[in-house]
Amino acid sequence: MHVTLVLFPQLTPLDAVGPYEALIRMPQSVVELAAMQPGSMTTSRGPLLLNADRSLASIASTDVLLVPGGPGTRALERDEALLAELRRLAAGARVVASVCTGALLLGAAGLLRGRRATTHWAFVDRLAEFGATPVHDQRVVQDGEVWTAAGVSAGIDLALGLIAALFDEELAKCVQLGMEYDPQPPFDAGSVAGAGPLIAGRVRAALG
Amino acid sequence: MHVTLVLFPQLTPLDAVGPYEALIRMPQSVVELAAMQPGSMTTSRGPLLLNADRSLASIASTDVLLVPGGPGTRALERDEALLAELRRLAAGARVVASVCTGALLLGAAGLLRGRRATTHWAFVDRLAEFGATPVHDQRVVQDGEVWTAAGVSAGIDLALGLIAALFDEELAKCVQLGMEYDPQPPFDAGSVAGAGPLIAGRVRAALG
Repeated sequence: MHVTLVLFPQLTPLDAVGPYEALIRMPQSVVELAAMQPGSMTTSRGPLLLNADRSLASIASTDVLLVPGGPGTRALERDEALLAELRRLAAGARVVASVCTGALLLGAAGLLRGRRATTHWAFVDRLAEFGATPVHDQRVVQDGEVWTAAGVSAGIDLALGLIAALFDEELAKCVQLGMEYDPQPPFDAGSVAGAGPLIAGRVRAALG
Repeated sequence: MHVTLVLFPQLTPLDAVGPYEALIRMPQSVVELAAMQPGSMTTSRGPLLLNADRSLASIASTDVLLVPGGPGTRALERDEALLAELRRLAAGARVVASVCTGALLLGAAGLLRGRRATTHWAFVDRLAEFGATPVHDQRVVQDGEVWTAAGVSAGIDLALGLIAALFDEELAKCVQLGMEYDPQPPFDAGSVAGAGPLIAGRVRAALG
């Protein structure tokens, strides 16, 4: 399997590294980190950099095109050169996937038209701007070859489902156990319903 | 809050980036990426590099010392220079934490002696070698100022608990909602009990 993870400046690191950690465990597979220009990508908030080894233009085709999110997507929704590359690679891919606001880039590229899709809870209604049907309250949405995940940490769930679909459930379970992905969040605050309106209001305000 | 995340060659990326994603959301805080020598660190299996901005020796003290795991820990258990730096920074820290086999480095540094601790399920019995009491079936173990997490993805749970302890529950819930950490793994295979002996045997064999 040939996976292309699309990097860009000001991406949210866990959006990319969550699914990466699962997908690199697939046998006979290559996961490559690509961007418009190779190099070190800044990430949201902190000092971590993520390196893109090659340009999207250098990739003839891929099986899985995966786009993470982050504050950087805002400017890129109008970056026609990037959107054209996403369309070109999506056309030949078996799976086109996003995590968090990566869905807004898929949408801006026209790849969500007529599809059910999701993204980070604070942005999910924006999917309608791109002709998609926003799906609330579903962590991973598959519509044909298009897979979209909710915010940040949801990319891990997406990747495990993808491995089961592309290979088989047994491999997905091996990957899950290898990552000891038996999550036990200390609070029930990972959804707006669980966190409540006060917490949700604070987080939404901070997102700007 | 001053957090030092210790990087080294051949670390498991999600071990570091999971807690990083949560901890960088703490207000008035600095999360720094440090290693014996600054530079790009290789990671297990794939092409991703993680950058260390500074040397451990350049850090006078820190509040939170966090050590991720990965295949690279095997060689480092006998790296006296690194273990001495871990001991030095741990001595002044409010919290000493590990994810996955990062616990084996804390153990080799003598920091787990007499403590209850955990690590990746496949290595948890090794903690006894370092005078620790291995805790099975608990995802995050706190014993005084020492916090240890189970494998790879457990660092996210640890970090949220840590934010609640260092700040308050409301901030931890805001961070959890910001990351939309409402995990829904597609399979019940994140623990040996859930995955069963066949899957566990396959994963253990692959770990070598």
